[in-house]
Amino acid sequence: MSAFTMDAVAARAGVAKTTIYRRWDTKEALIVDAVRRMAAPASPIDTGSLRGDLEALGAQMVTVLAVTPAGRLIPALVGELAHNEELAVAFRLSFVSERRAIVEAIAQRAKDRGEIAAGGDTSLLPELLAGPMFMRLLLTGDPIDEPFVGRLVERVLAAFEAR
Amino acid sequence: MSAFTMDAVAARAGVAKTTIYRRWDTKEALIVDAVRRMAAPASPIDTGSLRGDLEALGAQMVTVLAVTPAGRLIPALVGELAHNEELAVAFRLSFVSERRAIVEAIAQRAKDRGEIAAGGDTSLLPELLAGPMFMRLLLTGDPIDEPFVGRLVERVLAAFEAR
Repeated sequence: MSAFTMDAVAARAGVAKTTIYRRWDTKEALIVDAVRRMAAPASPIDTGSLRGDLEALGAQMVTVLAVTPAGRLIPALVGELAHNEELAVAFRLSFVSERRAIVEAIAQRAKDRGEIAAGGDTSLLPELLAGPMFMRLLLTGDPIDEPFVGRLVERVLAAFEAR
Repeated sequence: MSAFTMDAVAARAGVAKTTIYRRWDTKEALIVDAVRRMAAPASPIDTGSLRGDLEALGAQMVTVLAVTPAGRLIPALVGELAHNEELAVAFRLSFVSERRAIVEAIAQRAKDRGEIAAGGDTSLLPELLAGPMFMRLLLTGDPIDEPFVGRLVERVLAAFEAR
């Protein structure tokens, strides 16, 4: 996180540092907001099938994590979350809960269509889809690309689809 | 990572700092080694079934991540991995590859017993099991406990077991 300064942000944006601080109290708050905006889907995902929705969401996550600056900002943020409780709460109330709501809506529509058993436990669906991606981003450094996400979606479908 | 110093390690261990540096060049190298040792299973996991093996491995990971200091060291390490390539390589060659080999051995035995189809793609099994745990540790802060791991193992079994 140390390489990232408000001075650098102000210089890059071509504005005074006070202008940046008027909107974000700390650089961590700015980073949380930036990551949240990058992760927000351009349009709601609703393809009409669980497979289609997960493929669309997976493709969008590949873009966010491997193409936008979020892929570099999130690892820096993680080290801060561990010892900055206020930042951790802000991150969870924005980025984490918004992402979870998107996956929960996908799961609910799949139940309504009968693709997932009505009483099925889908509480872990967000984490089974996103966990392996974040593990590659944060720990293993393995590629986050279309072939990987394709195989991941196959496994997540197998884990939740009604038999 | 800044809160963690070689001085503190030396003081806690009751030895001179030079003694610590004789063994580990940097505090990051020391942390990688500590995490690797904590994650190593006390005895090999081989219960005779895929379900039993995953439950045993899951319980062991709960202990490592939620009980030992690894749960606090890993988040600090993640921020460093992103801008310290040497450390990232050391972490991946030790902790990551050792953990992956354990899960691959479990998957191979499950194939040998016919619990997973012989040609089944199990390459993502390590990540589907560990990804959600690391996501809780590093991002969401949700509990890493026995009920969570029990539900996770159910989903991973559904994702890979032969139908």
